[in-house]
Amino acid sequence: MTKYSYDETEAFKAGRDVWFEMRGPKAAQALLDQAAEHEMTRDLRQFLFEHCFAAVCARPGLERATRSIITISVLTALGRTEELKSHIRMGLNNGLTREELKEIFLHGGVYAGAPAAVSAVRAAMEEFEALDKANPQAKG
Amino acid sequence: MTKYSYDETEAFKAGRDVWFEMRGPKAAQALLDQAAEHEMTRDLRQFLFEHCFAAVCARPGLERATRSIITISVLTALGRTEELKSHIRMGLNNGLTREELKEIFLHGGVYAGAPAAVSAVRAAMEEFEALDKANPQAKG
Amino acid sequence: MTKYSYDETEAFKAGRDVWFEMRGPKAAQALLDQAAEHEMTRDLRQFLFEHCFAAVCARPGLERATRSIITISVLTALGRTEELKSHIRMGLNNGLTREELKEIFLHGGVYAGAPAAVSAVRAAMEEFEALDKANPQAKG
Amino acid sequence: MTKYSYDETEAFKAGRDVWFEMRGPKAAQALLDQAAEHEMTRDLRQFLFEHCFAAVCARPGLERATRSIITISVLTALGRTEELKSHIRMGLNNGLTREELKEIFLHGGVYAGAPAAVSAVRAAMEEFEALDKANPQAKG
Amino acid sequence: MTKYSYDETEAFKAGRDVWFEMRGPKAAQALLDQAAEHEMTRDLRQFLFEHCFAAVCARPGLERATRSIITISVLTALGRTEELKSHIRMGLNNGLTREELKEIFLHGGVYAGAPAAVSAVRAAMEEFEALDKANPQAKG
Amino acid sequence: MTKYSYDETEAFKAGRDVWFEMRGPKAAQALLDQAAEHEMTRDLRQFLFEHCFAAVCARPGLERATRSIITISVLTALGRTEELKSHIRMGLNNGLTREELKEIFLHGGVYAGAPAAVSAVRAAMEEFEALDKANPQAKG
Repeated sequence: MTKYSYDETEAFKAGRDVWFEMRGPKAAQALLDQAAEHEMTRDLRQFLFEHCFAAVCARPGLERATRSIITISVLTALGRTEELKSHIRMGLNNGLTREELKEIFLHGGVYAGAPAAVSAVRAAMEEFEALDKANPQAKG
Repeated sequence: MTKYSYDETEAFKAGRDVWFEMRGPKAAQALLDQAAEHEMTRDLRQFLFEHCFAAVCARPGLERATRSIITISVLTALGRTEELKSHIRMGLNNGLTREELKEIFLHGGVYAGAPAAVSAVRAAMEEFEALDKANPQAKG
Repeated sequence: MTKYSYDETEAFKAGRDVWFEMRGPKAAQALLDQAAEHEMTRDLRQFLFEHCFAAVCARPGLERATRSIITISVLTALGRTEELKSHIRMGLNNGLTREELKEIFLHGGVYAGAPAAVSAVRAAMEEFEALDKANPQAKG
Repeated sequence: MTKYSYDETEAFKAGRDVWFEMRGPKAAQALLDQAAEHEMTRDLRQFLFEHCFAAVCARPGLERATRSIITISVLTALGRTEELKSHIRMGLNNGLTREELKEIFLHGGVYAGAPAAVSAVRAAMEEFEALDKANPQAKG
Repeated sequence: MTKYSYDETEAFKAGRDVWFEMRGPKAAQALLDQAAEHEMTRDLRQFLFEHCFAAVCARPGLERATRSIITISVLTALGRTEELKSHIRMGLNNGLTREELKEIFLHGGVYAGAPAAVSAVRAAMEEFEALDKANPQAKG
Repeated sequence: MTKYSYDETEAFKAGRDVWFEMRGPKAAQALLDQAAEHEMTRDLRQFLFEHCFAAVCARPGLERATRSIITISVLTALGRTEELKSHIRMGLNNGLTREELKEIFLHGGVYAGAPAAVSAVRAAMEEFEALDKANPQAKG
């Protein structure tokens, strides 16, 4: 049993559903429970479900893989490395290939500066390594 | 006759070809000639063809419309409004619709902050108005 | 009658109410109607009400003037000048004084770089002038 | 005895006094001595006292807690995580509560992008944990 | 006679002297008087003299032209166009050539993204044109 | 033998030569081989040689030490710490002194915000320590 509970609004549930699909249900549930241990992380998670994942990822008009491309491009440009890693993983789940990710980083590096590409590649390599360790047969 | 001339390297020509297709040949030629009036703008244009348009837009691995999505996402995130306008126009030429652009801006606004969406929408509205004025029948 | 209509969700209405109070009802209504002329601006406005103004400005836990300080600090840091102007006006309506705004800009300039202070002051001076012209007796 | 010494200008002393109050005298003195071991860190510390802490934190016109809100908002927006941690600690000493910090981060996340909120919350959680370990009874 | 007066501290005078040399005495005096018309701009100017121009430009250790290179690189990277224009002018007064400025922008564009170079070049072209108009014989 | 091989274009070779000189041949070769183990890092390295090091560092018009000043100023402003460390090392090889680096960081901190100086100094101290450990007699 977790310490704090979420406010199960319609928007929360819509955001959570999207996130569970994109993140994988097992890892998602673990992170959700962990966030519920503190008021600050619970409120952040509630906010992210309602105002990020429900607000845009659940909108029609763009395929989910395309939304991943936008998110990853923005995070590459802004140098938000920790968040980028988590969206690289979700992007792969949404159907992006490692080759496409590589192209996003190099392309982004032209418009946001070469160091943006360098640190995105570093983040991706760490994430790929973690994925390959967890699932050696799927190695990309 | 323009004051300075370009160095017609392979990379320059590859970049120029991509840019002419994305920008429309007539406007592109006019901008190219105008840039050749000054050493600084000529060198910038030479640089952009070789190291932006040839370097990434001519690479395989992603469709041109997808490359526009990346560029537009990055420019939205970084608040580079003037450049954004020019890439909105190229994005439409690459096959993006106005509805898709709208989704990119709203989605980008979640990850780069709401003001990023506001100023991208303002830039797009100005660009759409200019396009509709130039070509009233194609009004999107 | 406007061309597009808003989706009057609970979140939309909560955000609209906050915004009308902060922006002044007459100017707010005019901007709302203007935004309803185009799909892109209507959707942006809908998004801003639901995911900005309702999402945070209507939350308890901080006074509205304090929320203005946060918004203005962030916009100063990020150099989002157009948005900053609109939030300067709302900040004054939320009870901030011109002297407090000055302190925010100078303080922000130390942490985000002196040019951030310079362009925030320039934006504020334009906004003050517009306000003083519209209401000569309230000149601050 | 430290290797380099500070230039005890009026501005240096004013900045040092503010910083000692905000940082706590014991930790502040240790950091000051440590910085005096190298020319580069000594000069940086001298600069920060004169041109940050004396320049703005010692100015009248805003309460110290309000200045913390501005600093923390700017650092959240710019993603300056290491500096943010140190200002979270000073903000708590200046009277901000953990709940207020949470609101700053969520609010900032709307205007600077959700990843700004995520990494600010991560930084705060690390800082809270360190504080709670050092002082178990004051756990917030 | 101006409305507000400056606080003629040692730091203020040191910063003012540097700025007058870099900006040209006539233009500098006019801007100084103009800033003294409003409390906010007077305080900003006071702050800039004490904490920017006196704080770093008057320090030994780097030639003034080198300091201009740093400032211009930072402003190019951050997209602070208005401030960049004023520092381009000061950089020329500090001995930088237009060719060196061009190299700074192209080099900066690789590390901060091509749009940074594009908007720096646009700013420089406007500034050069203004300078050439004011002084037709010195045309660079 | 490495897994992937580089495409030895003229631009690649020009960029590689510059980089080997700036990075030191032994460390450079090791990093180059390591990057060739994965498609993503090989492509990034190929891209950096052709479009960064060949594109600008090999251009005439500025001394190499001056180019280091620009790069380091940009990276300080943008907070790209990992890349900054590598360019601090190259800057020292290009003839910059530790005192000059200190001045770049303090100067940059005025225009990009004090936290930019703080994290650049932290990065430099780590890099200096690593250099001094590897070569105790050259301690700067």
